[in-house]
Amino acid sequence: MTVLDSAAEQRLRESFARQGAMATLGARLTHVAHGQAHICFDWAPGLSQQHGFIHAGMMATALDSACGYAGLSVMPLDAGVLSIEFKINLLAPAKGQSFRCEGVVLKPGRTIVVAEGRAYAIDDGQEKLVASMTCTLMAVQGRPGVAAL
Amino acid sequence: MTVLDSAAEQRLRESFARQGAMATLGARLTHVAHGQAHICFDWAPGLSQQHGFIHAGMMATALDSACGYAGLSVMPLDAGVLSIEFKINLLAPAKGQSFRCEGVVLKPGRTIVVAEGRAYAIDDGQEKLVASMTCTLMAVQGRPGVAAL
Amino acid sequence: MTVLDSAAEQRLRESFARQGAMATLGARLTHVAHGQAHICFDWAPGLSQQHGFIHAGMMATALDSACGYAGLSVMPLDAGVLSIEFKINLLAPAKGQSFRCEGVVLKPGRTIVVAEGRAYAIDDGQEKLVASMTCTLMAVQGRPGVAAL
Amino acid sequence: MTVLDSAAEQRLRESFARQGAMATLGARLTHVAHGQAHICFDWAPGLSQQHGFIHAGMMATALDSACGYAGLSVMPLDAGVLSIEFKINLLAPAKGQSFRCEGVVLKPGRTIVVAEGRAYAIDDGQEKLVASMTCTLMAVQGRPGVAAL
Repeated sequence: MTVLDSAAEQRLRESFARQGAMATLGARLTHVAHGQAHICFDWAPGLSQQHGFIHAGMMATALDSACGYAGLSVMPLDAGVLSIEFKINLLAPAKGQSFRCEGVVLKPGRTIVVAEGRAYAIDDGQEKLVASMTCTLMAVQGRPGVAAL
Repeated sequence: MTVLDSAAEQRLRESFARQGAMATLGARLTHVAHGQAHICFDWAPGLSQQHGFIHAGMMATALDSACGYAGLSVMPLDAGVLSIEFKINLLAPAKGQSFRCEGVVLKPGRTIVVAEGRAYAIDDGQEKLVASMTCTLMAVQGRPGVAAL
Repeated sequence: MTVLDSAAEQRLRESFARQGAMATLGARLTHVAHGQAHICFDWAPGLSQQHGFIHAGMMATALDSACGYAGLSVMPLDAGVLSIEFKINLLAPAKGQSFRCEGVVLKPGRTIVVAEGRAYAIDDGQEKLVASMTCTLMAVQGRPGVAAL
Repeated sequence: MTVLDSAAEQRLRESFARQGAMATLGARLTHVAHGQAHICFDWAPGLSQQHGFIHAGMMATALDSACGYAGLSVMPLDAGVLSIEFKINLLAPAKGQSFRCEGVVLKPGRTIVVAEGRAYAIDDGQEKLVASMTCTLMAVQGRPGVAAL
């Protein structure tokens, strides 16, 4: 694990702060390193599906951002990141008080970066793997409307 | 297209009303039929990513629900629906004032139902395809905590 | 549907002829048009899985090529095509005498092209949808070892 | 890692031997354990795409079988295994003399088992990760035509 320098970490944290979706989740960027990002959030009624579990899409929101920031951390400082596609497997009902989504780069590339995510539910102090993601990211440079964040 | 009978439609609408995530999106279930469901929502800052577009995960939330209700509409009345996995392709930045997510059943099965989703952005009156999804659903009967919704 | 000009069609057919995997499948490129490609092959013992159906990976081989040639047909003549990723849903056992895989471009882009595939089994004259694919392709220009095919 | 008992290992090896597709690849089942299976094969012209690399679908064939046998190893002895869906990311051109596909169970379940695969190319003695897969499997019991293999 390589620690990010302060400019690189600041870029990630500024980008994270600009994601309205992360505020909606009450999400915190709890860990960043070269090729890694963790995002945590707590259960809330506004994130639930019909059975009271976290909605698969809300979990995907946190996982996609975790994968995206893991990916951005290995991209040039003047690049922005866009998700091209992702796939999520819901391994168990997302039942718990809080959730930790871990993104890690599997394959860095000049244009395409592939990252993987794992989501863990913390339920009464027990941790459980509840979802996995594979996410394909694109480094975007010089495209109007896509800042280097 | 086959119209749902009122009991079947009511089941879907009750389930939708219980999804806190749909309220967070300000989402409306605008169309249901046998094997079909449409969900619409408007742009809001709390749904955005760092460039101001709709966050891929928030779009996935609406698409997953559209696919899920399309799937539930072809399942027995005493079954609940769970997403096993989904994959989304982000085809264009989700830029616009409002969004329509269409779910349609591709393959109904006794246990496994596969649905496809399309998301359209409406931007200054112009409609544009911005995302596609494939979603694998499971019909769940008699599992504690998973109501027939 | 737009017919390809003869140079564009020839490029596809030459590329197809260079795929040893297509010969192994006994596959024919039965249709090409702008954004479309169809590939047909017959059941053979060397393509089967343990129950005698076509192996999911062999079906994926034909679908990936169908999607790839659909994609290549919309790319510049000096570009090569590489699959970045694909996802296949096996909707029914691939049981039959012959199979038709249809690829169609969902979203053309300068660098990234997304295509969708459908596989049909023909079993005693009855056609049945047995698999669907989403495939993300990249146009590659000027990379050593990747010819414009 | 838990070693399989001889009856469980024999079931896997018999199933593997019945896959015509594995013979076409010249594939060997080089390792099996509880929740794990490795499949190796060598480069051959009949497995190639237009640039001479292993065709993505042929790699998917080996990865899907590796995931499938990893999954079957955790299923009851009277169950058969079917792939519901899989997704593969092609991380680098599959260039090399031989290839090793590793499948491992991520989440065992009564009906649904999720496995992950990694494909490595061995090129002039150097190993390189060239593809990753997520595969959703279903345990099938008592379905005509689907033997417990």
